[in-house]
Order: sequence, then structure tokens, then C-alpha cells
Amino acid sequence: MDPPTSPDDEAAAFFRAAPPFRDRDAVAASLAAFVARHRARAAAGGGGGGGGGPPAAAAGVVCVTSGGTTVPLEQRCVRYIDNFSSGQRGAASTEYFLKAGYAVVFVHRRGSKQPYCRFLPEDSFLDLFELGEGSEIQVPESHTTVVKTAISSYRKAIDEGLLLKLPFTTIFEYLQLLQLVSTAMNCLERHGMFYCAAAVSDFYVPWESMAKHKIQSAGGPLNMQLSQVPKMLFILRNQWAPSAFCVSFKLETDPDILIQKAEAALRKYGMNVVVANELASYKDVVVMVTSSGKTTVSRRSKEDDLEEQLIALLVKMHSDHAKQSNPEQET
Amino acid sequence: MDPPTSPDDEAAAFFRAAPPFRDRDAVAASLAAFVARHRARAAAGGGGGGGGGPPAAAAGVVCVTSGGTTVPLEQRCVRYIDNFSSGQRGAASTEYFLKAGYAVVFVHRRGSKQPYCRFLPEDSFLDLFELGEGSEIQVPESHTTVVKTAISSYRKAIDEGLLLKLPFTTIFEYLQLLQLVSTAMNCLERHGMFYCAAAVSDFYVPWESMAKHKIQSAGGPLNMQLSQVPKMLFILRNQWAPSAFCVSFKLETDPDILIQKAEAALRKYGMNVVVANELASYKDVVVMVTSSGKTTVSRRSKEDDLEEQLIALLVKMHSDHAKQSNPEQET
Repeated sequence: MDPPTSPDDEAAAFFRAAPPFRDRDAVAASLAAFVARHRARAAAGGGGGGGGGPPAAAAGVVCVTSGGTTVPLEQRCVRYIDNFSSGQRGAASTEYFLKAGYAVVFVHRRGSKQPYCRFLPEDSFLDLFELGEGSEIQVPESHTTVVKTAISSYRKAIDEGLLLKLPFTTIFEYLQLLQLVSTAMNCLERHGMFYCAAAVSDFYVPWESMAKHKIQSAGGPLNMQLSQVPKMLFILRNQWAPSAFCVSFKLETDPDILIQKAEAALRKYGMNVVVANELASYKDVVVMVTSSGKTTVSRRSKEDDLEEQLIALLVKMHSDHAKQSNPEQET
Repeated sequence: MDPPTSPDDEAAAFFRAAPPFRDRDAVAASLAAFVARHRARAAAGGGGGGGGGPPAAAAGVVCVTSGGTTVPLEQRCVRYIDNFSSGQRGAASTEYFLKAGYAVVFVHRRGSKQPYCRFLPEDSFLDLFELGEGSEIQVPESHTTVVKTAISSYRKAIDEGLLLKLPFTTIFEYLQLLQLVSTAMNCLERHGMFYCAAAVSDFYVPWESMAKHKIQSAGGPLNMQLSQVPKMLFILRNQWAPSAFCVSFKLETDPDILIQKAEAALRKYGMNVVVANELASYKDVVVMVTSSGKTTVSRRSKEDDLEEQLIALLVKMHSDHAKQSNPEQET
């Protein structure tokens, strides 16, 4: 068999060989219901509120991807390659999208940072609580505000049906999920947005060529050959959801190649925006690369989230994008 | 330079090349204080309570290792190899060791399961809480008991100084931490116990031969050569804490080689017990392999923890082990 050559062929070969996605039908059904509920709303209003004011009556639907994907090295998986990502960016961005009136499909790595939980202790949330004299659950004074705000904001998003959380672990699950979400969101046309902040593996071991059992260590050093993961952003843009507003991220550790790689990704995959960030400073500064130029976004202070400004700018750009296709819309 | 040949040489070469352990002095100081506090107690009573009764007045100190280690593939780490382990075994075992009167050094992977948090929802603990009418924090009726028990048991262990939690992420941090803990616990002699449930990488990329920046994906498939991690259990047993009671774990996916590999580990590293478990059934059944034979431990029902029986048996064995060296002890 000749190796596949076009991005389409590569993607098709990847999906054919991937282990089947568990709960596909249930996930597809919850996605369809979520999108249908927000479709009318998005089409009527277009774009988000942005800025500091209250959100517009209706905004769009955004798929936020967050956290790293794993690459199993064995079919009965003991070992896997992982990509560094706490999910901080995706979790913070989800909060600001919700604040701007968006409905959010939060496609996240299991166990990564969750919206509204970012400021809570990581290792043992039990550190947050104590029992009062009547054995009622109490939160120490120092944490009361942050815990109460977290609970009420989270409850609001869930109760109003604005947040759909879908977890993944492996690269196989992630890409199958991305396909499910983007084909479900395609009907939103220009009101849909993809904000692909997940750290996606570039290399993987095809399922069929993977060791069945745990690789034994008695045989000396281990040699591994990994294949390239097909560039699915290209397929997303060209087939799955061609009218959506697409934002992807480029993370590098070497500042000398960062912008050039972001510009290449913009052209190659047809993104609307590529957000370039460097590992050493990703919390403090990013560069938004678009076809019309570059915009640097810096956080104002250590107490602020960079994502607040970033999402405000993107919501404005998405609103303009949505208007282009709907000249007849009522405003 | 010739390749190192003895386990000692291999270990020395590994530590020489590893990136320095951050907070080494602070961790060493907290360990020294913890061990000193429990040393007199352990020496006076020896062994634990075990069984169903109340714990003996004084038990030993156990180091529980838990969760998987990572192997960075780049110095400014974006990608790493990880070992599957939720940390469930180590977290549950820690609870039963505490119940048996032990002081526990819980050496755990950051973000893995924590003692007393095992029954709480994984992805968003905010699902556990709601705000009452007076905006007080409430737990839904269905979860009240489990949350209150978790909070009170955890608080008790922390307040009584019986639990020291030390986190790691990489294989470099884990092995440096294991050395720190075991040399600190060496003064406990036979009253010390090591319960090494962490899933430790067998292969790694030596720091010096590691890519400095993120590996680029433009160059086609990726070839990696990984070296074997030195077998530190041998060094632990022979140098760091030679009198301690040592329990290690062997996980395989192939049942045909499991027991034979556990027996080999028992001999090779001089463990007191090797707990053999299979990926498909590790929550339901394990086999304790010792020099005097094999004991199968099965959990009684889905509601029980296998670790309850396992720890009871080990506490009894450790108590016998501790008595051997202290014929003059007062009982």
C-alpha cells in the first residue's frame, strides 16, 4: 500500500485505524441538542458583547479545546507520551467567553484545569474545608470569597445550559471529538467559533503497529519510531466547519522561530487568527497573528488574566466575521 | 568514557546527570523533623495495630510512593512520556496505614489521587457544592456523609502530624525524592517501611542528550532512543535503608509472565514482598509474593477496598520484621 499523500487521505487513514470512540452516540446526541438550543439565539444576534458591558442578548457558540493529548505506546496502555499543558489557558478563556454571552463546548483533557476552579488549591481541595462545631462544612475566611464565586459562577453556567463539558485523554479521542463537535457546529455557520488551545501531539504510534502488551525493559534501550499526526486543522477549516471563525495556538520554546511558525500555520491551515506564545512567558504575553497583521496582547498585572483582553479582541473579530455573511440580519 | 556497569555506578551516573532537585533543603528539613517526631514512638512500640481493633499505641513510619513518573523528552519540556497510574492504590493504602497507626510519607505524583479524596468527583469538585439561600456553602444530601468523613479524616491526619505529602512529576524528581526519604528514614531501622506503589518509568532520556527546545514536527517521523532507568530498589535495599521492610509492586498486562517477573524482582532487589498485579484486575485481586510463598488477596465486594486486607497483612508482617531486630524491646 502506498503511503497516503493528501491531508484528506491522511486524515481518513488516521480515523480508520483509530480505536472506536466510546460513547460516540451519546456525545453526538448531547452535542446536537446543545447546538440546536443555541442556534436560533446565535443566528438572531450574532457576535458577542465583548468589552466591559453586559453581554449582548445573544452571542455565538465557541468550541474551546484545552489540555494536552496523550499518545499511547501500548494498546493495553501503561505508557504514553503526553504534552505539557495544565489547561489553564482553556479554562480561563472559557470563563471569559461565558461572560461575553457565548455558549461553550469545553473539550478538555480529563483532569486538566476546569473553569472557575483555577484559583483553588491543586493537590488537595480538602485543604479548603473544615468542619464547624455542629459538623457543618466551613471554608476558612481567607478562601470564602473565591470559593463562593466559583460555586455560583459554575452553577449559573451549568443551570443556564451554557456549558457543555466533553473530556478526552488520547490523541485518538481528541481528534474524533473535534470531528464530532465541528460537524455538529457546522450548521451555526459564521456564528460558530473554534478556539483550539489544546496541546495536540505532533507524533503518534498508529494503533495497528502498537505493542499489544507492556513493553519489557529487560531488552536494553528502547527504540521507538513515531509517525506524524495528520494536520486536522486543515480538515476542520476545509470540510468540517468551513464558515466558522477559527483560532489556533502555536507554542514554541525558541522565540526565534515562533512568529514565523505562527504565520506559516495561518496560511497553511487558513486560520483566522493564530495566537503565538512562548513557553517561558505564555501567561504574560501573546501575539495575535492575522492576515492583516500582528497584535501583541500583554497582561496588565500579575492579578489580571491575559485571557480577558484576548477574548475581548476575539469576540469583536468574530462579531465582524459573523456580520459579513449576514448582511440581512436584524440588529 | 566506558558505560557504567554496576548498579551503584549506574545510579551515581543517573544522579550526576539529573537536573538539581528544587527545594532539596526544605524537603530534607521537613523530612528530618517528621522522622525525628515519630522515631521514639516507633522504636518504643514497633509494628502496627493491624486487624480490626484500634491501632497499637505506636506503629512505624511508612513511605508510600504513588502515581506515575514522567520522562521529559525536551529540556524545556513540552513533551514527556508518562506511566499510567491514577494513584488510587497509593491513596487508598495511605488511608489504611494511617488507620493502623502509621505515620505516612506520601510521595505522590502531582495531581494524582489523594488520600480521602478517592470518592469525590474527579473533573469538577464544584459539582459537589451549591450555595444556600443565605449564600452559605452546602453539599447536596447525597454527598454529605462522604464529604464530611473525608474532611474530618484528612484534618485529623494533618493536625496530628501523621501525614507528610511530598510531590514529584519527573523520574528525576521521583528518584531524588526516594533517596532523600530513604536516607532520612534509615535511622528508623526495622521500624521503617517502604511501600513502592508508584509506576516508575523503565526508560528515560538522559538529561545531557535531551533536545533543548521543542522537537519540530516538520522533519517527518520521529526516532527516539531511550536508555534504561537504573534499578534504584536495589540501591534502596542495599545502601539507603538496608533494615527497612520493603514492599514493591509489579504490574503487567500479560498474566503469563506476571508471577515469574514478581519472583525475579523479589530475588534481584531483595524485597520483603512483591505485590503482583495485572492491569485488567488490579482493583480486584493481587498476589503477595514473599520468600516463603504466595498469598492471593481478593476484594470481598465492589464496595470494599482490596487495600484494607493488603495493608492488614503487611502491617502484621512488618511488625514481625521489626521484632526480629529488637529482642530487648519492652512490650
